[in-house]
Amino acid sequence: MCGILGVVATTPVNQLLYDGLMVLQHRGQDAAGIATAEGNTFHMHKGPGLVRDVFRTRNMRALPGNIGIGHVRYPTAGSAYNFAEAQPFYVNSPFGIVLGHNGNLTNTQQLQEEMFRLDRRHINTNSDSEVLLNVLAHELQACAHGFDLDVDSIFQAVAGVHRRCRGAYAVVVIIAGYGLLAFRDPHGIRPLVYGTNETPEGTEYLVASESVALDTLGFSVVRDVEPGEAIFIDFNHQLHTRQCAQQPVYSPCIFEYVYLARPDSVIDGVSVYETRLRMGQHLADKVKLNLPVDEIDVVIPIPDSSRPSAMELAQTLGIPYREGFVKNRYIGRTFIMPGQSTRKKSVRQKLNTVREEFRGKRVLLVDDSIVRGTTSREIVEMARAAGALKVYFASAAPPVRFPNVYGIDMPTRGELIATGRSDEEIAREIGADGLVYQDIDSLKTSVRELSDRISSFDASCFDGCYVTGDISPEYLDEIEAARNGTPKKDSEDGGASQQMHLNLMSEQA
Amino acid sequence: MCGILGVVATTPVNQLLYDGLMVLQHRGQDAAGIATAEGNTFHMHKGPGLVRDVFRTRNMRALPGNIGIGHVRYPTAGSAYNFAEAQPFYVNSPFGIVLGHNGNLTNTQQLQEEMFRLDRRHINTNSDSEVLLNVLAHELQACAHGFDLDVDSIFQAVAGVHRRCRGAYAVVVIIAGYGLLAFRDPHGIRPLVYGTNETPEGTEYLVASESVALDTLGFSVVRDVEPGEAIFIDFNHQLHTRQCAQQPVYSPCIFEYVYLARPDSVIDGVSVYETRLRMGQHLADKVKLNLPVDEIDVVIPIPDSSRPSAMELAQTLGIPYREGFVKNRYIGRTFIMPGQSTRKKSVRQKLNTVREEFRGKRVLLVDDSIVRGTTSREIVEMARAAGALKVYFASAAPPVRFPNVYGIDMPTRGELIATGRSDEEIAREIGADGLVYQDIDSLKTSVRELSDRISSFDASCFDGCYVTGDISPEYLDEIEAARNGTPKKDSEDGGASQQMHLNLMSEQA
Amino acid sequence: MCGILGVVATTPVNQLLYDGLMVLQHRGQDAAGIATAEGNTFHMHKGPGLVRDVFRTRNMRALPGNIGIGHVRYPTAGSAYNFAEAQPFYVNSPFGIVLGHNGNLTNTQQLQEEMFRLDRRHINTNSDSEVLLNVLAHELQACAHGFDLDVDSIFQAVAGVHRRCRGAYAVVVIIAGYGLLAFRDPHGIRPLVYGTNETPEGTEYLVASESVALDTLGFSVVRDVEPGEAIFIDFNHQLHTRQCAQQPVYSPCIFEYVYLARPDSVIDGVSVYETRLRMGQHLADKVKLNLPVDEIDVVIPIPDSSRPSAMELAQTLGIPYREGFVKNRYIGRTFIMPGQSTRKKSVRQKLNTVREEFRGKRVLLVDDSIVRGTTSREIVEMARAAGALKVYFASAAPPVRFPNVYGIDMPTRGELIATGRSDEEIAREIGADGLVYQDIDSLKTSVRELSDRISSFDASCFDGCYVTGDISPEYLDEIEAARNGTPKKDSEDGGASQQMHLNLMSEQA
Amino acid sequence: MCGILGVVATTPVNQLLYDGLMVLQHRGQDAAGIATAEGNTFHMHKGPGLVRDVFRTRNMRALPGNIGIGHVRYPTAGSAYNFAEAQPFYVNSPFGIVLGHNGNLTNTQQLQEEMFRLDRRHINTNSDSEVLLNVLAHELQACAHGFDLDVDSIFQAVAGVHRRCRGAYAVVVIIAGYGLLAFRDPHGIRPLVYGTNETPEGTEYLVASESVALDTLGFSVVRDVEPGEAIFIDFNHQLHTRQCAQQPVYSPCIFEYVYLARPDSVIDGVSVYETRLRMGQHLADKVKLNLPVDEIDVVIPIPDSSRPSAMELAQTLGIPYREGFVKNRYIGRTFIMPGQSTRKKSVRQKLNTVREEFRGKRVLLVDDSIVRGTTSREIVEMARAAGALKVYFASAAPPVRFPNVYGIDMPTRGELIATGRSDEEIAREIGADGLVYQDIDSLKTSVRELSDRISSFDASCFDGCYVTGDISPEYLDEIEAARNGTPKKDSEDGGASQQMHLNLMSEQA
Repeated sequence: MCGILGVVATTPVNQLLYDGLMVLQHRGQDAAGIATAEGNTFHMHKGPGLVRDVFRTRNMRALPGNIGIGHVRYPTAGSAYNFAEAQPFYVNSPFGIVLGHNGNLTNTQQLQEEMFRLDRRHINTNSDSEVLLNVLAHELQACAHGFDLDVDSIFQAVAGVHRRCRGAYAVVVIIAGYGLLAFRDPHGIRPLVYGTNETPEGTEYLVASESVALDTLGFSVVRDVEPGEAIFIDFNHQLHTRQCAQQPVYSPCIFEYVYLARPDSVIDGVSVYETRLRMGQHLADKVKLNLPVDEIDVVIPIPDSSRPSAMELAQTLGIPYREGFVKNRYIGRTFIMPGQSTRKKSVRQKLNTVREEFRGKRVLLVDDSIVRGTTSREIVEMARAAGALKVYFASAAPPVRFPNVYGIDMPTRGELIATGRSDEEIAREIGADGLVYQDIDSLKTSVRELSDRISSFDASCFDGCYVTGDISPEYLDEIEAARNGTPKKDSEDGGASQQMHLNLMSEQA
Repeated sequence: MCGILGVVATTPVNQLLYDGLMVLQHRGQDAAGIATAEGNTFHMHKGPGLVRDVFRTRNMRALPGNIGIGHVRYPTAGSAYNFAEAQPFYVNSPFGIVLGHNGNLTNTQQLQEEMFRLDRRHINTNSDSEVLLNVLAHELQACAHGFDLDVDSIFQAVAGVHRRCRGAYAVVVIIAGYGLLAFRDPHGIRPLVYGTNETPEGTEYLVASESVALDTLGFSVVRDVEPGEAIFIDFNHQLHTRQCAQQPVYSPCIFEYVYLARPDSVIDGVSVYETRLRMGQHLADKVKLNLPVDEIDVVIPIPDSSRPSAMELAQTLGIPYREGFVKNRYIGRTFIMPGQSTRKKSVRQKLNTVREEFRGKRVLLVDDSIVRGTTSREIVEMARAAGALKVYFASAAPPVRFPNVYGIDMPTRGELIATGRSDEEIAREIGADGLVYQDIDSLKTSVRELSDRISSFDASCFDGCYVTGDISPEYLDEIEAARNGTPKKDSEDGGASQQMHLNLMSEQA
Repeated sequence: MCGILGVVATTPVNQLLYDGLMVLQHRGQDAAGIATAEGNTFHMHKGPGLVRDVFRTRNMRALPGNIGIGHVRYPTAGSAYNFAEAQPFYVNSPFGIVLGHNGNLTNTQQLQEEMFRLDRRHINTNSDSEVLLNVLAHELQACAHGFDLDVDSIFQAVAGVHRRCRGAYAVVVIIAGYGLLAFRDPHGIRPLVYGTNETPEGTEYLVASESVALDTLGFSVVRDVEPGEAIFIDFNHQLHTRQCAQQPVYSPCIFEYVYLARPDSVIDGVSVYETRLRMGQHLADKVKLNLPVDEIDVVIPIPDSSRPSAMELAQTLGIPYREGFVKNRYIGRTFIMPGQSTRKKSVRQKLNTVREEFRGKRVLLVDDSIVRGTTSREIVEMARAAGALKVYFASAAPPVRFPNVYGIDMPTRGELIATGRSDEEIAREIGADGLVYQDIDSLKTSVRELSDRISSFDASCFDGCYVTGDISPEYLDEIEAARNGTPKKDSEDGGASQQMHLNLMSEQA
Repeated sequence: MCGILGVVATTPVNQLLYDGLMVLQHRGQDAAGIATAEGNTFHMHKGPGLVRDVFRTRNMRALPGNIGIGHVRYPTAGSAYNFAEAQPFYVNSPFGIVLGHNGNLTNTQQLQEEMFRLDRRHINTNSDSEVLLNVLAHELQACAHGFDLDVDSIFQAVAGVHRRCRGAYAVVVIIAGYGLLAFRDPHGIRPLVYGTNETPEGTEYLVASESVALDTLGFSVVRDVEPGEAIFIDFNHQLHTRQCAQQPVYSPCIFEYVYLARPDSVIDGVSVYETRLRMGQHLADKVKLNLPVDEIDVVIPIPDSSRPSAMELAQTLGIPYREGFVKNRYIGRTFIMPGQSTRKKSVRQKLNTVREEFRGKRVLLVDDSIVRGTTSREIVEMARAAGALKVYFASAAPPVRFPNVYGIDMPTRGELIATGRSDEEIAREIGADGLVYQDIDSLKTSVRELSDRISSFDASCFDGCYVTGDISPEYLDEIEAARNGTPKKDSEDGGASQQMHLNLMSEQA
């Protein structure tokens, strides 16, 4: 998962892109980048770390221009390929193109070979996004009639991308001298929304992964980009849109609603917040059937994402809702000291209990989902240490049982607590006195009943059904093998302190 | 306000101090520092910015030793003196002393003159903490009998500090070759708590501004350091304690409970979280008298600090409690671009609405306090923009009307919205349909009814009563004049990007 | 002027390229870069400043591979285009190519238009080197037969570059998956030499701007690359060479011998050191005719480059040679302090007199050349201040009167002291009691009499004859106008402290 | 050896101190620092590396004030103590004092114990300079009568320092609120000179290690500070001077003339350049007796420091003088790459031959001195590789046979090539066909015959006589043992890239 932004404005966009990336920072803390276009010239700055660490005043000053794209990157080791570079990516032939991508291609290897064999294009990293850019570049070269690239050719090129690429992709692109292009894969797995802001000098356009970026930056949402659709805003601020896929299907990633997106975003017409309330309602129904509701004194959310579900669940069950955990806003690094053993960073560094809410009580903890289970186990322990008499656990999502191949970093099946365990076994494993998971159908209902257009979902990590239809067991084995082979990145070692060198095109700024 | 930490351990303390400062980071984001002692040698690193920006691996490696202190600094422009340096501070005569201070001295100027005239000690900055360190150093020199500094001499020196210094001070100190000293001013205005951790090699001691640091680092709370008391842990891990003030009075700062401290801390025996619940109860009573409770559809907190009060208020009033605002976790800077006008950073960068919770509803917003009122006004506007029919506002604290001289950065009286305005006028000013403030007595009751030892409070910013008894109207005028003269610091310009030079003893690391 | 390096080795080349750039640092202190190839993957790091400032350990570790190129850049404002980026440059289509260039194209503008109109290639900077790379890329694409690029195709592509590009270019290139290519323009204006090092694993090849790089890195010089020639070392360490120009002419830049190159280099078969001795001899002959030789007590060089000429001149004239000036090895910056006027950095910061060598003496100062004359004037003043009775001045090169369009940064004609002044007027202008310039023919003879192959020279800054035959008066006016419009770069503001942002493809490293 | 500077000016001194340190950079490349005084407030910045790397614009801006001191540090591992910190050092009691020191104390350990036992002062590093500062501070405290420190008291304090401290020390000091103090040990081992600059606002004073700093900064030399003498410039620009030692003896370090100082400096009234000419003359006499002068074709200096001696030697012998070596101005680092063996940095990285000057010739190489002999051996090899038929070697200084305890970093006796070897054996060891060393008496004569005041020298590394009279064989053994135990510092790893953390008082700037 990553966050992307694109803007065509009437004044310089560097600060606006920076502010927008801040709002999308929850979608990726691994790296950040901005590219702007000033006339025919691109300016770019990118690097590892948080947006606030990557961009200094001198970098911002070197990003002039009224048009630009931005990207925040999430490490997607789970998708078999390890990004070597921050985005955006650039190619200079044809035209000059910069691109930012959210998602993951599932036929990267095949495309790489084609690129090498047929297109004579050099792919310098293992990033599927670099491959995607080169496919687009090749299609643009093939579709352009003479030198004058017209809108039809651009949309034909997107259609070409849809034909060649498999997987999930929401994409923002600037074509030098032409305009801002954005498109979404034919299943609409990753979100993309656009909006406008009227100024005396003309209409400004913003396209972003989540509507919250438009809200915060003062843009009005127009609508989501549809699965398979492309939109193009030319340098005269004219908007062009076209459906470029042959058989688009609305099947967005349901994990966006469960956990990834901000609650104040509206994705594909559905308020993420409301879906979480519904998840709480449905989960309450199942809790009633499976846990001794009368014995539960209090419902406590695991902050921050489970708050709406937990609140609604508490209200549905008529049990008091209390904030028993306080989240540490500042998380530090673990330094490796010569001759000292590294202290284990436990959940206690991230969460702390308010003892008054646990002491002598029977509590129902609500989390958005359970992945490895290690955090859940520590949380249950903390609740008991704070004096809880009974600790029940409810997950607003069903058991996570399968890898994600569309851009979310998931552990391998061997690491998932739900692999090969019944609910009772999982409860025992995390030390809970009882455990309730949302049903997969209830989860889907929670979103679908709020929508007039979503028929199906990518819910693959829960049900193992991959909407792109090209995921073989061998593919899954392969990416898990690759993942196991990858040295584990210390996710604490963030930001400026990390400062690893990036493979190509690195410059000292 | 700042955060302080001191530790005597059996293994290296650099990572532990770093982790502890992370937990205290909410008490100060302006600068951070750590000093450790390894035998008779001190090691120190400090600088401007967040803890995560100040400490890199190379800095941590240069902080060996099993004893240390840490500090996070909050800018205290309101206290008439602008800190020139990060803490800890160091003097080499006598013995070698490093010190970290939370609070503010109110007789700094007089002490500075004495220091210059009588003690021949050089004070290089405007920091009251440097003055405090030199008073302590002078008293230690005077009290030491020959070379061998004994525990009695150390406590006599603290008594000397109490005699000479006025104001608020919670202090951690290492005396080279001797041990860790911690003490608290005779009114106990700023908090200080200590605890222990048993290891095979002996007992470890940790003293900190808030108990949450002990919880997170795995220490058990023993008790608060009492007003006027000093504790000394020598290098043999022996604890010594003594009351060093002649007439100590328990009058802690009530703003710690209202806003400053983390809810999961216990200060002077009282759970901060529980006091906030009580504030919610008392506020509910007043709301009932002053607002049309039946017409209110929903209670919405302004995250994060007002959640407990709002939750309890909602429950007391029997009105649904909902999370209508989402807080942005990542706040960026505003860059000054040549030739571009700076875009105003509004509250919308920090908060966003979940429209579903406002649309067509009559809402009661609850905040912990109202200072300038500008944020409140924007929040009310946002609520209306999200579709609220009526917007009421309740403050868990009384009107803020006076400067703080004990280490909290408050605007001048001219900037406080409550100055010279009735509640109705304030309501109009912030655009609310109704406004309710907590009563000062109810606020004090919220804390006192949970305590067996607190008799009085420093509640000066609400009631203008300064417990140290030395604050004249002239003094207040003077610090406000100084504050108005100070160029306004851009609080967004945080962290490593700021990198201003510090006055003295700066080294490149 | 810049310095370039390319190597095909049997072990990692990062340290070797770094060491080589150190040796070529005199050819450019403005920026530095290294690109390496590891299999089919490129790694690159570049930035503004000295080599020692651009490369840190983390950057070096990120440059694996046994093949690579390096570049040090000299700012060439005089050539009408201001480089926006450090080199090497990269394009990913076709094949993946990185390139480093020394020289300057004189038909950049025309090529840029062709590139845009015909080749649909995006040129993002004003650098002629980026244009050169794209011309090469286009020619490679056109010449490649199917996917398999053979040696013939590569040499055809170089022939295509020769057809399209005018001006000076010595070039090193890596083609991903193929090998290291190096070539020199058909006039051989900029130098290029290659050599080998035998290892148990095979022959290693090094190509460099100057032979001193080969000496220092332990390689044996094979020979110079000839004007118009290309050499290609494939990934099997096979060397291929071919003359790719139709009518190559040997006319190297004579300024390399005068000043640019290191004295211990051998360029186009001629020892730079020996040419400088000869310049001293010839200059001595002219001094005899024009100055009162009997009255001269001592010959003093302006260090470092004029030492050989001055020494030989002294010996020829039978006058003692003494080192009267000491050069400061460490030159600092001038900081701009708010409210302080900037102190003028005079020559005294760079040179200091040894008074004993001037007091009461009649001295003949020898410099390699006189450009603006401001330095010469200060030096004459210093000699007098140190007690010299008479100060004569001799220049080992003729008067500089014309712009350089082949990559040397020269002031505009208006700034050159020789513009519109007789030798006597120049003597008066610099305050000397007498002044002698080398004759242009003697200068050429100084080189030619040591060579068996050089027939003509680019001596354009002395005689205004431009060997490429395409330089019109309008072109010269245009580049001088561009130069005058360019904000003057503060050349003191070097190294890491400069840290300006680079336009495109910048990454945080 | 280090370089020190102190200035009392009428305008801000930051740039002036920076420029001055640049000129003294040859005296120490290990660390640099500046402290300024603005009224009663000190500002300081210091760090490891070259001056150009330590000071950035932001650091310079934070150094206001018209009075200041500067320091460049040379690592003095040979003196048994390894500096832990850059200078200046600061103590705040009494008065506030900052100090910079060139030299080395030989009774550091005894003083440290006294400091701890009697003075209760904390010494945080192993630096003798920190000890020296505390001795001075203690004496100033003892001598001050009441608060008003008068000039007599200050000079009494210096007399106290002379009584307590042994060894070499040239010192610059600022006493807050009083003025700039500078003094030199009673033997005058390390140089110190002062001068003035008249401005409309009054007389400015500059004191520096070498006169070249005064020349370059536009100050006129007044005279050397005498052995044992102190000078004090108060804040009213009044100069006070006094002899503070009881039996001062003029015995400066003769190695300053041989190698350390710049040739354009005048030390203790003697031009360094002229002494080197004399050394050349005397050496010529000895060469005549010991080498086949008629067979020598050419005299070649090892640049830079041996040029004057070699030139004079050549002239005396009537043999041509030629520059056969070119020195690389840019020396890089050796990076440690995982899995690669470090390539040995040979002399070839620092020097390269001009082959024409060696081919077929019998050469006499002249160096200023021979220490370990490894460099000499490589140089002889290079001469032969360049084609020399015979290679003779002459050293302008006698054999180095003893450690230096006065601030010069010398290898241990075991590492010195002259230890236990005759001249013939040394010649064989370095591969020369003949070797001539200067006689110790001739060396002394070279300086003494130019002076009217120097009677004796510290020439201890040649003759083993230590002028301070306190150096026992045990002391020498001890410092050599300490040196052998010290991990060898990679001297290439300089500047900003090194960035090691400094022990105390480090701040992020």
